[in-house]
Amino acid sequence: MDTSGKVIKCRAAVAWEVGKPLSIEEVEVAPPRAHEVRVKIVATGICGTDDHVLKGSFPNIDYPVIPGHEGAGIVESIGEGVTGVKPGDKVIPLCLPQCGECSSCLNPDANCCLKTHLCEPQNLMPDKTSRFTCKGKQIHHFLWISTFSEYTVMPDSTIARIDAAAPLDKVCLLACGFSTGYGAAINTAKVKPGSTCAIFGLGGVGLSVVIGCKTAGASQIIGIDINKDKFTKAKEVGATECINPRDFRQPIQEVLTEMTGGGVDYSFEVVGDVDTMTAALASCHMGSGTCVVIGVPALGSHIPFDPMLLLTGRTWKGSILGGWKTKDSIPKLVSGYMEKKFNPDVLITHTLPFEKINEGFELLCAGKSIRSILYF
Amino acid sequence: MDTSGKVIKCRAAVAWEVGKPLSIEEVEVAPPRAHEVRVKIVATGICGTDDHVLKGSFPNIDYPVIPGHEGAGIVESIGEGVTGVKPGDKVIPLCLPQCGECSSCLNPDANCCLKTHLCEPQNLMPDKTSRFTCKGKQIHHFLWISTFSEYTVMPDSTIARIDAAAPLDKVCLLACGFSTGYGAAINTAKVKPGSTCAIFGLGGVGLSVVIGCKTAGASQIIGIDINKDKFTKAKEVGATECINPRDFRQPIQEVLTEMTGGGVDYSFEVVGDVDTMTAALASCHMGSGTCVVIGVPALGSHIPFDPMLLLTGRTWKGSILGGWKTKDSIPKLVSGYMEKKFNPDVLITHTLPFEKINEGFELLCAGKSIRSILYF
Repeated sequence: MDTSGKVIKCRAAVAWEVGKPLSIEEVEVAPPRAHEVRVKIVATGICGTDDHVLKGSFPNIDYPVIPGHEGAGIVESIGEGVTGVKPGDKVIPLCLPQCGECSSCLNPDANCCLKTHLCEPQNLMPDKTSRFTCKGKQIHHFLWISTFSEYTVMPDSTIARIDAAAPLDKVCLLACGFSTGYGAAINTAKVKPGSTCAIFGLGGVGLSVVIGCKTAGASQIIGIDINKDKFTKAKEVGATECINPRDFRQPIQEVLTEMTGGGVDYSFEVVGDVDTMTAALASCHMGSGTCVVIGVPALGSHIPFDPMLLLTGRTWKGSILGGWKTKDSIPKLVSGYMEKKFNPDVLITHTLPFEKINEGFELLCAGKSIRSILYF
Repeated sequence: MDTSGKVIKCRAAVAWEVGKPLSIEEVEVAPPRAHEVRVKIVATGICGTDDHVLKGSFPNIDYPVIPGHEGAGIVESIGEGVTGVKPGDKVIPLCLPQCGECSSCLNPDANCCLKTHLCEPQNLMPDKTSRFTCKGKQIHHFLWISTFSEYTVMPDSTIARIDAAAPLDKVCLLACGFSTGYGAAINTAKVKPGSTCAIFGLGGVGLSVVIGCKTAGASQIIGIDINKDKFTKAKEVGATECINPRDFRQPIQEVLTEMTGGGVDYSFEVVGDVDTMTAALASCHMGSGTCVVIGVPALGSHIPFDPMLLLTGRTWKGSILGGWKTKDSIPKLVSGYMEKKFNPDVLITHTLPFEKINEGFELLCAGKSIRSILYF
């Protein structure tokens, strides 16, 4: 059936207000306008960031909203002026745009496109209207991509065409979690062979950092988590040892400094806790160590830290989506996946039908899943 | 007269206790022991760090002490086992050692030798005794080099032989101030041609950052200071424009973001103020900017800052002595000076006989000097 140009009715998960579980609804999805693309989502992961939306701790969200940002699907139809994709193409929606025109996009060393939600709201399409309605009400978009809907509309700056042979229920992980952690090690820290690394937080992103450190040839990869149930998987993907800060009387930075003869070459904070961020910086070797912050802190957080930690030659960096220029890089990461350069499949602990989305969030919040993948 | 092996009596400036001016005294300087060198200081600069010693805001100082760490001189005699220098050599004492054996010295990307005062006290020679006495009392060393003494003794890890033709009353600046600022731009930030830079604080080190940015080919170099008397010199050495934060209602980071179309590529904090450190970070372009902290904050300072500034792709670094491995690099910097690759002479605003040392500190604290050079 040709749905092009028509409103599509389909299932979506709507967050009607803060603090409530998602509600599976029938929504109407309008056709794409100029420079927009309508995509049939095939699979989507559940990421901690979506949970922040449900709990109201993600900035500048308008409710009701359809969350979801780690999806993969197939182009259903395109609006006027769209040239990069066509109906039938396999695609990954990009939660970080690559407009190709802003000062970040034009800078070869930057990936934080100025069209990101940090710079302008993405709760409506760029023309300030929504493509979603439900029960007569306008529903907001999330990061312009809202992958918790069977059909969704996005600007053409936030979509990347990928290999036609890619398994969408696996490569959806490359849309956010895996690429964020893997890229933090490869692009942001630029981990060197033979180096020592410490990863604070062994969830899906933290494990992806471990994979990145291993791929880069690090010789000592120390996983740190207060939940020791996570150690088995961490060692499976490359951690050479794992420690629980609660097993020590000393601060964890002192433990790591002793373990590594002066501090690690690279540390990664994937928790989003301000005290852990400072501990991760202090764990770095004086004069040369680099700490990469990946975890998103609570809204309005402030880190108090001793600037002598920097003055003595440490480097503190942050990373969004692993430093990848998304439109250029996500298709290449998919190719790398197809060539078995890395294996993020090990992060997928649960596969659930879309209707069980709230069960997926419960598994995440209970620390029982790494990644749950929903399928339509 | 051969003074080798004998105690030398000479002039030195002693800080007997916190908060008092220096006192010019006759001191006894014992001969160098094994792996030590006795140096006749010819000229020494007055740096803000020495003022911190007088005011008690430098960590772990034992009084009475002879400060001074920006000197140049001639080897008078050497102790057993010293191989790198011989009597008569022109030398620069190193306020940051390069022991050649620690993990920092062995790391090609690090310069913060683990023999620095941040890791172990340098108030006495490595054998835990002093070479200075005055009026029957033991006087402490400062950073192992105490250049406010006509003769001083130092370990051979803290001395670099330089070009025999170098003018000591000029190249003493390369011992600390100039190299710190210039290296922060060249080594720590690695400023690229065509880039935009902002320098917070236009004292001697800040002006050296300006010189470094200009040498690296930056196209926009913005000097920032609350004392507009410093703007003339800043423009003379390379600043393309200078601004005073007090002339604006907006926070200075917003002013800079507007001036540069999104933020600077590199910012440098040379004030030592925690609020300025955060403003300098926030002035960097999202996704790519690098902020280098050079200014030494008050003891026990803590910076509260929003970690989103890092997460959005900025980098925060610190730099000690411009990232130079001192023993290897200071002689090369002296060569660069002799070849006129850069001209730190413009930073010397006053030349004073050693006896007028307190006058030099008054000029510094009143913001009337950039660098005063004392001669014996």
